[in-house]
Amino acid sequence: MAVGLSEPQDILAVPGIRLSTTYAGIRKSAKDDLVLIEIAKGGRSSAVFTRNRFCAAPVLLARKHLEKKFPRFFLINAGNANAGTGDEGLKRAQLCCASVAAEAGCAVTEVLPFSTGVIGEHLPVEKIEKAIPQLLQKLNAGSWMQAALGIMTTDTVAKAVSRKLKIGESEIVITGIAKGAGMICPDMATMLSFIATDAEIPLPMLDKLHKQAVQQSFNAITIDGDTSTNDACLLVATGSSRIALDTLNKSQREQFVQALSEVYRLLAQAIVRDAEGATKFVTVRVQGGNSKNDCRKIAYAVAHSPLVKTALYASDANWGRILAAAGRAGVELQPAKVSLSVNGVMIFNKGIKSPEYTEEQGARAMAASEIEITINLGYGSTAYTVWTSDLSHDYVSINADYRS
Amino acid sequence: MAVGLSEPQDILAVPGIRLSTTYAGIRKSAKDDLVLIEIAKGGRSSAVFTRNRFCAAPVLLARKHLEKKFPRFFLINAGNANAGTGDEGLKRAQLCCASVAAEAGCAVTEVLPFSTGVIGEHLPVEKIEKAIPQLLQKLNAGSWMQAALGIMTTDTVAKAVSRKLKIGESEIVITGIAKGAGMICPDMATMLSFIATDAEIPLPMLDKLHKQAVQQSFNAITIDGDTSTNDACLLVATGSSRIALDTLNKSQREQFVQALSEVYRLLAQAIVRDAEGATKFVTVRVQGGNSKNDCRKIAYAVAHSPLVKTALYASDANWGRILAAAGRAGVELQPAKVSLSVNGVMIFNKGIKSPEYTEEQGARAMAASEIEITINLGYGSTAYTVWTSDLSHDYVSINADYRS
Repeated sequence: MAVGLSEPQDILAVPGIRLSTTYAGIRKSAKDDLVLIEIAKGGRSSAVFTRNRFCAAPVLLARKHLEKKFPRFFLINAGNANAGTGDEGLKRAQLCCASVAAEAGCAVTEVLPFSTGVIGEHLPVEKIEKAIPQLLQKLNAGSWMQAALGIMTTDTVAKAVSRKLKIGESEIVITGIAKGAGMICPDMATMLSFIATDAEIPLPMLDKLHKQAVQQSFNAITIDGDTSTNDACLLVATGSSRIALDTLNKSQREQFVQALSEVYRLLAQAIVRDAEGATKFVTVRVQGGNSKNDCRKIAYAVAHSPLVKTALYASDANWGRILAAAGRAGVELQPAKVSLSVNGVMIFNKGIKSPEYTEEQGARAMAASEIEITINLGYGSTAYTVWTSDLSHDYVSINADYRS
Repeated sequence: MAVGLSEPQDILAVPGIRLSTTYAGIRKSAKDDLVLIEIAKGGRSSAVFTRNRFCAAPVLLARKHLEKKFPRFFLINAGNANAGTGDEGLKRAQLCCASVAAEAGCAVTEVLPFSTGVIGEHLPVEKIEKAIPQLLQKLNAGSWMQAALGIMTTDTVAKAVSRKLKIGESEIVITGIAKGAGMICPDMATMLSFIATDAEIPLPMLDKLHKQAVQQSFNAITIDGDTSTNDACLLVATGSSRIALDTLNKSQREQFVQALSEVYRLLAQAIVRDAEGATKFVTVRVQGGNSKNDCRKIAYAVAHSPLVKTALYASDANWGRILAAAGRAGVELQPAKVSLSVNGVMIFNKGIKSPEYTEEQGARAMAASEIEITINLGYGSTAYTVWTSDLSHDYVSINADYRS
């Protein structure tokens, strides 16, 4: 039931990246649940992980491995989060990495593990070990879509985006995949995303680009305020194009950054569009604030409010709930300066209901499947935008039934 | 559908308080929607109001009036919140107070207005003015239950609690009523509560008792994290018993404080038990922390998590969601020290799933309608308890349909 989201088209191979997928039997339904991504020698990777204090074993191990070596392999499984599993969980993640390393002839620290699925169950290491030789054999440049499908959990649509840039006579490709349809909140919620480019980018610059892009995409979405134990977002620069980003001119670099940001933003928005039970895609824009942080707090208070989200689901222009949510964000407001519009319809204008506003206008605006809520605080010039979804019966059904 | 909550029994009159109710036609359904409470001369009132920045006109006015005089009347309407109504809203609240003052022969500042209902609609002042003479005539000491019914909105059960204390040869009575079944969160959410005693209590002591009791009751409940524009909790000491609290001995005073706290706690819990769509009453207790504030943050993160709440609704012992919510509360944790039990069943013990734990035990524990989640952080001695409800299909239905 994804809102305005269709199957990805024209996903491009990224020179220097090969992928393969298989069904290892980790999840019950017989869909691919194990993905291997190979990065050509010389590639550089930047990572952002969940800040959840109960972060999972694969997150702990991936962080550790990243300190030692440039990764050559990402091993990703769906169906089991390997979280809340203590030392045994760490050992099992380690065994999976060791299995890839042994078969591929690389160091164990060159393999990063990623897991998503149910928390608190032990990872079936033997099933994974058994699948590794076949995964290594099947590696190929064209399997991005299969990988996007292999990392899905409650997602209904695979998420993948590609961009190609002409740089003089040459080309740079950017392709990313992502998963995650619930438990989405800033600070890397239940989502995994792997983005790769064949540009050559030194690590410090890669880290900076990655963090900036995450901030404006995956850290600006929320579905239910919950963040997960396992989330990770990786950006890989393989360098296979032999185009070094730091040798490009300013306009070329900007062109690259813009394309990269677009890949992140479209992947992040795809997660919200495919939110559990979502019937609306909602943009909450708070502007006219004194600080970005004030605007952010208010945007999230509105985007998290179950009362706002159920009103959105019902297409009910119950704008009082939007104001009430904004009012409890812990930010000083002057109600007499605040304005609120939904899809361009001015509802509340400087402290009172807009005289021209009619319930019919509100109902029409709220009936759309893409909703833009704009709150103008009326005293400054900063702004912040958050993307979210509504709260439907299906959200409750999906999350009440997930394990059963 | 209230969880473990039945109609209040044996609600006692409080000497010095008279009440009356009527249907003034503010709400559509023909149930009482206007309540007048009269406080005998000499009574003292303490108030706590919403901290929402979009607080409603009646809140602004009641605060102002409280600075001038000791209140003689509370005028409470359901069906219209008189919030988001700007200066016109203030004027209308003022007119309602003036109408009571004129008919009763008191100062307008001796009347406090309270409103609950839909935001952004203008208060029908004429309907209210018309009902005032009749309300004044009908005032009597025995109408507490009618008042509890008259302030209800989406509540399904009236909320009222009484306690009587023997002090030597005499008696002190405490009776309170409350409303509010959604939009409940700390800092005074959509709830109104009026509590009265015939003890004689000087204002500074009354304020202190009131704030303490609110902190441990109405500010320790959450249904959906939303707070409202209108909430107010009032404690009145009429003094009609001629028993002055500050002349009692220590044990008598403690007895009073305990009874008072119990009235607050039972009213607050009644609101959660009658939460919109609730099928479970959930106590989240976080202990073993380094500070009360740490425990509080974690308790609220768990109590607000839609994923935890849907799992509770489904009676699914999906304890990974509880840990994940605890882990994102922004509090430093050492997962290896943390334990989690539900209704006495130890699920997670110092960083790993308890070896004795079985899914059957978890399912049995979660099937109860009263659930106690205990999280032990394992390093300190502070604790915090929060009460909440689950998130059901009915919550979505009620809030998607409220205005239609």
